[in-house]
Amino acid sequence: MSGPDAPDGELLARVFLNRVVEPGDEIGGRWVRELGAVEVARRLRDGSPRLAGVSDKRWAGLLSRAASAAPERDLAAARDAGVRFVRPGDTEWPAQLDDLGDARPMGLWVRGRANLRMWALRSVALVGARACTEYGAHMAATLAADLAERGWVVVSGGAYGVDGAAHRGALGAGGATVAVLACGVDRPYPRGHTELINRIARQGLVVGELPPGDHPTPSRFIVRNRVIAALTSGTVVVEAAYRSGSLVTARAAQRLGRHIMGVPGPATSALSAGVHELLRGGANLVTDAAEVVELVGGMGELAPDRRGPVLPRDLLEPDTRHILAALPASRAATAAEVADGARTTVDDAVARLYELRSLGYVERHGDGWKLTRQAMTSARAGRTGG
Amino acid sequence: MSGPDAPDGELLARVFLNRVVEPGDEIGGRWVRELGAVEVARRLRDGSPRLAGVSDKRWAGLLSRAASAAPERDLAAARDAGVRFVRPGDTEWPAQLDDLGDARPMGLWVRGRANLRMWALRSVALVGARACTEYGAHMAATLAADLAERGWVVVSGGAYGVDGAAHRGALGAGGATVAVLACGVDRPYPRGHTELINRIARQGLVVGELPPGDHPTPSRFIVRNRVIAALTSGTVVVEAAYRSGSLVTARAAQRLGRHIMGVPGPATSALSAGVHELLRGGANLVTDAAEVVELVGGMGELAPDRRGPVLPRDLLEPDTRHILAALPASRAATAAEVADGARTTVDDAVARLYELRSLGYVERHGDGWKLTRQAMTSARAGRTGG
Repeated sequence: MSGPDAPDGELLARVFLNRVVEPGDEIGGRWVRELGAVEVARRLRDGSPRLAGVSDKRWAGLLSRAASAAPERDLAAARDAGVRFVRPGDTEWPAQLDDLGDARPMGLWVRGRANLRMWALRSVALVGARACTEYGAHMAATLAADLAERGWVVVSGGAYGVDGAAHRGALGAGGATVAVLACGVDRPYPRGHTELINRIARQGLVVGELPPGDHPTPSRFIVRNRVIAALTSGTVVVEAAYRSGSLVTARAAQRLGRHIMGVPGPATSALSAGVHELLRGGANLVTDAAEVVELVGGMGELAPDRRGPVLPRDLLEPDTRHILAALPASRAATAAEVADGARTTVDDAVARLYELRSLGYVERHGDGWKLTRQAMTSARAGRTGG
Repeated sequence: MSGPDAPDGELLARVFLNRVVEPGDEIGGRWVRELGAVEVARRLRDGSPRLAGVSDKRWAGLLSRAASAAPERDLAAARDAGVRFVRPGDTEWPAQLDDLGDARPMGLWVRGRANLRMWALRSVALVGARACTEYGAHMAATLAADLAERGWVVVSGGAYGVDGAAHRGALGAGGATVAVLACGVDRPYPRGHTELINRIARQGLVVGELPPGDHPTPSRFIVRNRVIAALTSGTVVVEAAYRSGSLVTARAAQRLGRHIMGVPGPATSALSAGVHELLRGGANLVTDAAEVVELVGGMGELAPDRRGPVLPRDLLEPDTRHILAALPASRAATAAEVADGARTTVDDAVARLYELRSLGYVERHGDGWKLTRQAMTSARAGRTGG
């Protein structure tokens, strides 16, 4: 949460709208763009002046939801569950989401210690079939592990199949992963992934538009996909049948100008048919992490490491500065060594290291981490200058 | 053989050059383009005036080969083996081969009863690894069978693996197939495919640049690939490792403006790695025959069936006219029925039916054949007019 502890009016208004307006509703987004969140919330609470663009029935539905919304209660419940609300304009808000225009989320509920904005800077989505084959699970896990080892954050939807294999692959490589859920982030879905999603919340980030306690619906999965697409530099579809939801994510990514990629499979496999259709439509064929990075790594401002740190050391958060200071000058160190040096947990160290990776300060080196050449240069320059 | 039974000078010269100049030699091709085959043959036989563009050593090599060349003997041996020589300008010469420029073959040795030019009009190359996987063999056989059922001629190289599976798939569907060999067409290679290649000669066509009795060399496989590429409307690579010869065929096809296609496979398969590389380079991903035909079927003058017959009935060869006359007016007939009606063998009927398919007179209908709407119209018009 940004600002002082007491929530400001705009924050309360966005938490309120997050409860009242369905995710992805572009009419609600337009209202907020034209009138501001506070005014839109006031009108929905008061029932007048009536907002334009919706039917009587839909307006009545909005008012009914508004009547039962209690943003202070939502924020308190979130705080108790270790969940924060990140909204446009916050330092943690991922600017890429602004590409969604009026379908931009009112805000995101976030569980986990890493900085979502920093992580999203170097992130790739891996999505695919829930009922994937062993081949699909293998490819998802391998790509995720290899992307994590190259310092990329793996984003997926927390579902069974490809999503789960991707999250596990990243975690297994000591890497960073983000689960974007279609329900409240305190309410893991599917139930069978409760343990996995809780582990992601400890070692990575669990993110969602829906307020704490809310449940997923089929349409919410679809609109959730646009967040995965917008958050990342590119989307890789690992396995997907025709008409699969993963293809929706891929098409959303394409509309947003993101890279879309597909992993080929046997032409005889129904679970590769959707991917092949995507590839025939112009998506990039990828078979390993190097090919993924070759594409997404070239995204200009999203790949700051090539030009060295983009944020001066002094502007880093204190916890992140401590991690940076704990890195040895001339060799790689494991996350555990860095955690020891900075007197924090390994999970916290990993979270900060990936932030520093996004900012161009550090890079993964095998199983460890080391300062980039540019970071060392800027550190020396800093010392000399100060 | 075209023309009267006694071979003319140009024919003898080309048979001679076919023995003396290595296939694909562009210097030899340029000589022929500039001086004509007869004059080039005379100079190589006489040793003067010397031809330009080759080293002393190479010139001596050519003269030595010329000294032992005996075109009449080659033609006699070929005739005994049921092999004919088809050269540029012959009615059976596939005009597409002219796209090869100075690398155009001096001529082709052909075994089999079908008309090579007619068959090549609607043909697709299926090529791939010799040591293919079961998946590769399955895809090759299935694509070949389905292409054959759609009236397309399947061209391949007669090798083990993908080539063999493609030929067998086409033959198994009662379809048309052409093997383009890198050795004399009377000398099947590999030896283990002797039976298959002889069967192709009976039911399809076996074609090659090299004179009867000649053996294959590694470089001859490579130059043979350009003939496969040029002869067909497109080349499908089914399975190929990095640096595979099939990729040479595909790149040759691309340079010639033909469609190049690849069948995807598991990203984990080394035998799909070359195909994936090709697809990443812009080749078309195909997973079934419909997708292949969607591409190659749109090749303008190479898909005459859309505009009805391209050759008037009167210009058809008598044997082919008999087959056409044996087709019932309003229903499909099997090749066996047609053969019965035309008092010929099934193999001969199939050969002619595929020629008629290329010319737009007939189409495959399940397991049988029927007249196209355009053929029926032109037949009625012919009757009315006559």
